Amino acid sequence: MPGEDAPEHRHTQNAFRFVVEGQGVWTVVERDPVPMRRGDFLPQAGMNWHAHHNAADEPMAWIDGLDIPFQYDVEAQFFDFGRDGLSEHEHSTPDRSRAERLWGHPGLAPVSQLRPIEGTPLLRYRWEDTDAALTDQLDLEREGHPGTVEPGHALVRYTNPTTAADVLPTIRAQFHRVRRGAETAPRRETGSSVYQVFDGSGRVRVGDVSWSVQRGDLFVVPSWMPLSVRSEASASDSDSGALDLFQFSDAPILAKLNLFRSHVEEPA
Amino acid sequence: MPGEDAPEHRHTQNAFRFVVEGQGVWTVVERDPVPMRRGDFLPQAGMNWHAHHNAADEPMAWIDGLDIPFQYDVEAQFFDFGRDGLSEHEHSTPDRSRAERLWGHPGLAPVSQLRPIEGTPLLRYRWEDTDAALTDQLDLEREGHPGTVEPGHALVRYTNPTTAADVLPTIRAQFHRVRRGAETAPRRETGSSVYQVFDGSGRVRVGDVSWSVQRGDLFVVPSWMPLSVRSEASASDSDSGALDLFQFSDAPILAKLNLFRSHVEEPA
Amino acid sequence: MPGEDAPEHRHTQNAFRFVVEGQGVWTVVERDPVPMRRGDFLPQAGMNWHAHHNAADEPMAWIDGLDIPFQYDVEAQFFDFGRDGLSEHEHSTPDRSRAERLWGHPGLAPVSQLRPIEGTPLLRYRWEDTDAALTDQLDLEREGHPGTVEPGHALVRYTNPTTAADVLPTIRAQFHRVRRGAETAPRRETGSSVYQVFDGSGRVRVGDVSWSVQRGDLFVVPSWMPLSVRSEASASDSDSGALDLFQFSDAPILAKLNLFRSHVEEPA
Amino acid sequence: MPGEDAPEHRHTQNAFRFVVEGQGVWTVVERDPVPMRRGDFLPQAGMNWHAHHNAADEPMAWIDGLDIPFQYDVEAQFFDFGRDGLSEHEHSTPDRSRAERLWGHPGLAPVSQLRPIEGTPLLRYRWEDTDAALTDQLDLEREGHPGTVEPGHALVRYTNPTTAADVLPTIRAQFHRVRRGAETAPRRETGSSVYQVFDGSGRVRVGDVSWSVQRGDLFVVPSWMPLSVRSEASASDSDSGALDLFQFSDAPILAKLNLFRSHVEEPA
Repeated sequence: MPGEDAPEHRHTQNAFRFVVEGQGVWTVVERDPVPMRRGDFLPQAGMNWHAHHNAADEPMAWIDGLDIPFQYDVEAQFFDFGRDGLSEHEHSTPDRSRAERLWGHPGLAPVSQLRPIEGTPLLRYRWEDTDAALTDQLDLEREGHPGTVEPGHALVRYTNPTTAADVLPTIRAQFHRVRRGAETAPRRETGSSVYQVFDGSGRVRVGDVSWSVQRGDLFVVPSWMPLSVRSEASASDSDSGALDLFQFSDAPILAKLNLFRSHVEEPA
Repeated sequence: MPGEDAPEHRHTQNAFRFVVEGQGVWTVVERDPVPMRRGDFLPQAGMNWHAHHNAADEPMAWIDGLDIPFQYDVEAQFFDFGRDGLSEHEHSTPDRSRAERLWGHPGLAPVSQLRPIEGTPLLRYRWEDTDAALTDQLDLEREGHPGTVEPGHALVRYTNPTTAADVLPTIRAQFHRVRRGAETAPRRETGSSVYQVFDGSGRVRVGDVSWSVQRGDLFVVPSWMPLSVRSEASASDSDSGALDLFQFSDAPILAKLNLFRSHVEEPA
Repeated sequence: MPGEDAPEHRHTQNAFRFVVEGQGVWTVVERDPVPMRRGDFLPQAGMNWHAHHNAADEPMAWIDGLDIPFQYDVEAQFFDFGRDGLSEHEHSTPDRSRAERLWGHPGLAPVSQLRPIEGTPLLRYRWEDTDAALTDQLDLEREGHPGTVEPGHALVRYTNPTTAADVLPTIRAQFHRVRRGAETAPRRETGSSVYQVFDGSGRVRVGDVSWSVQRGDLFVVPSWMPLSVRSEASASDSDSGALDLFQFSDAPILAKLNLFRSHVEEPA
Repeated sequence: MPGEDAPEHRHTQNAFRFVVEGQGVWTVVERDPVPMRRGDFLPQAGMNWHAHHNAADEPMAWIDGLDIPFQYDVEAQFFDFGRDGLSEHEHSTPDRSRAERLWGHPGLAPVSQLRPIEGTPLLRYRWEDTDAALTDQLDLEREGHPGTVEPGHALVRYTNPTTAADVLPTIRAQFHRVRRGAETAPRRETGSSVYQVFDGSGRVRVGDVSWSVQRGDLFVVPSWMPLSVRSEASASDSDSGALDLFQFSDAPILAKLNLFRSHVEEPA
């Protein structure tokens, strides 16, 4: 809500925000104010100091993802409080965070900061970039070139520019775009995923159950259950009819421990 | 020269082009036409099929860097000829190569292509991006934040988005911008470097020798010789007075074999 | 018990056996019969086929360690049954398993099998080797050279010769020897450990609680609780008075996910 | 020669000794006296302090391998002199070096020293271990199990127990045993190798040239030339008729720079 604040703190949990509606809030990470707009993905590695402030005059909504259940299981949680307030400077609303100015140029690394960092130093993955990358993949497919993971299905993964690995040590985040009328082949993998319907509408099948989804819906896919989605444009769809899905999962945990498996069924 | 072609071939040598003047030529790498404009950096990993064509009506100039001497020493060179001609499609001049459409979005990887690839799959690092990254570093310094490697000295490294390592297995490429009036501290490192003065003018000191440089000059820094540069705007400088230097070196060879060392002297 | 069999099976769980008393049973892993004697450590990576047979005429005891709770949490468990019976050959009792003949020579790798394998291919770490390594560390300390982790405290880690990492993707296994009269500094780490008192006797302190232990005892150290042990020879001790402790923990999980921390307090 | 000394020094060059005849000399590496006997392999990573002393009363012979030509090419050589003399203690002749007591136990790492070290900390690979590993491979083959690289051809690689990689950053060292009467398939690889005929006799073919070899001979195989060897027992052979070959090469350089290739021809 407008004007709300959260004081500075840090914790071992890896976390992220994915902005679902609105804009105006920002997160201050390591004293760097990071703006938040619809479609932006903001990862935040464990033990970064952070605080939040809503400078907007309307409500916003986002998804907060954390690896709390996992860290609870392995008993590795730590938490510290930080400063009581933020400085004047940190209450400003920049167009780009300092993190983006250092790390947001494709394939270019700032030598002064360059070393493998476990959680990504790029604190905001802008919607404009994600949208352009997905559009490019579908265009390449249309022109007869590789790019999509299967016909009509564009997929990008958020990565850490210092390691080329997943954006956070325990969390994988990806964005899917399924072209109007396309249906993805049933795919299983170990580990569980959460999906948010960012835009469009369609039909989801998980195992033997299927249901319709539309913008704003959330759904969960348990470990080793086959998932298939079909994009179905409806009258209320504001866009091209594509189905846009944000996904996050615990795949990095499984991959690093040699427990990741996946299986794609032939499409019917 | 306008209209010139080079037939398709491939070789184990890692190579790159850095465009010094003009535009209009393109390289066709793995059947993907890659446009070339002043300031663009085009890496090309060993054993990629490639050809060249100049569609412009004026001359162009670029630096071709290859690891031929090294591969000659270790006797690992292979070469193959490819097709006699290029297809119609490959003679077109796209605004962006397919490689850029897949890999040119900051922090975003196309899942369909994602695996560690030894030489970067991003075939063009556009000047606009390099220029913006350097500008951001100097702006951050002015605002009191980390970003430059030393006062007045911005430095970016071209990296491989699939490994976060150097852009080619044997070649490091970087771009320096030294603010008007700034001087870099003398720095030595093992391995040798070639520098191209992309813009601006100044004074270079290597060991006990110093000389003036201006746009278009090339110079070499041998292994373990201290290098210092000073930016000196002259009347003919078209820009802000900053000295822009493109650099390439064999640092990845030394680093992988545990032979890389560097030493920075205190500035006088 | 003598004559007992377990049929062939495999599962994703990583497992090991540490032999506490007796000898004569063997494990058949990937059709390779592996003998088991007191003090031997037998790791078994997930998805190896294995079966067991007791050819001895007296009971044996061992510790079975598996990562079942963790794999249950992340929902990545798979299980298959194998052949109904073992071949004649697999019922023999060799002195050394084939795995030991390939991988049990220090620093020497069989080129025909050499590649990074996630779970160690060395299927038996013999007590004679572990005992000799611990003795060497305490001897080196006595001669004034590095070797022990702190005065009077020898420590070896079981490692995978194809990666130099922990012996199993999710389990760390180590062996401690604390010299008669020595006391270890209180040490905390994230992740929990199980200890078995293999030989000797002494006093254990975990947080504010302390108690006496002797040969055959098991105890658990929860995450981030400080542990200190003191070796106290008693009348019934058969050996030099040293306290020998086998330990296993989930440290590789925490380390790979950037959650491992440790802290050693100054000894009182 | 007996009584000869070499003063303490260190250099960036990676080096090794392989003992061809005699015993009694030792190398003092980082103040650790390492005994040398026929068949022992003693690697020595760059920048380790070392000195030599011959306490025997008869001559000895060994092969000294260094990566001097390579380091000359890349201009990364450094050299320092150390102490003028060695301490009393360093003139003693231990049965095992301290390095062997810490690192010479199969699969067991001393936790106090455990971290990835670029050049192996195990300073002596004893002939007894190499011989046993080769014998085991040929025995496994005879029993119908995997172990050799091809029929009648046992092959072990010296590895670094802290990384599981080659023993030195720039040098690969291996030992071949070819069973009496066996012939190896022609094999090419990039990079060049030196072979020493440690024992036995036979016939070597490199490209179109072939010649007979016997104990003590050295030969070189240039990059990408096919090598085949046949073991031919002669009247003077002291052993089983097997041909024993020590090999070293620059393969790690090629492998790390993505330039390693190999090709095995079908045997005639």
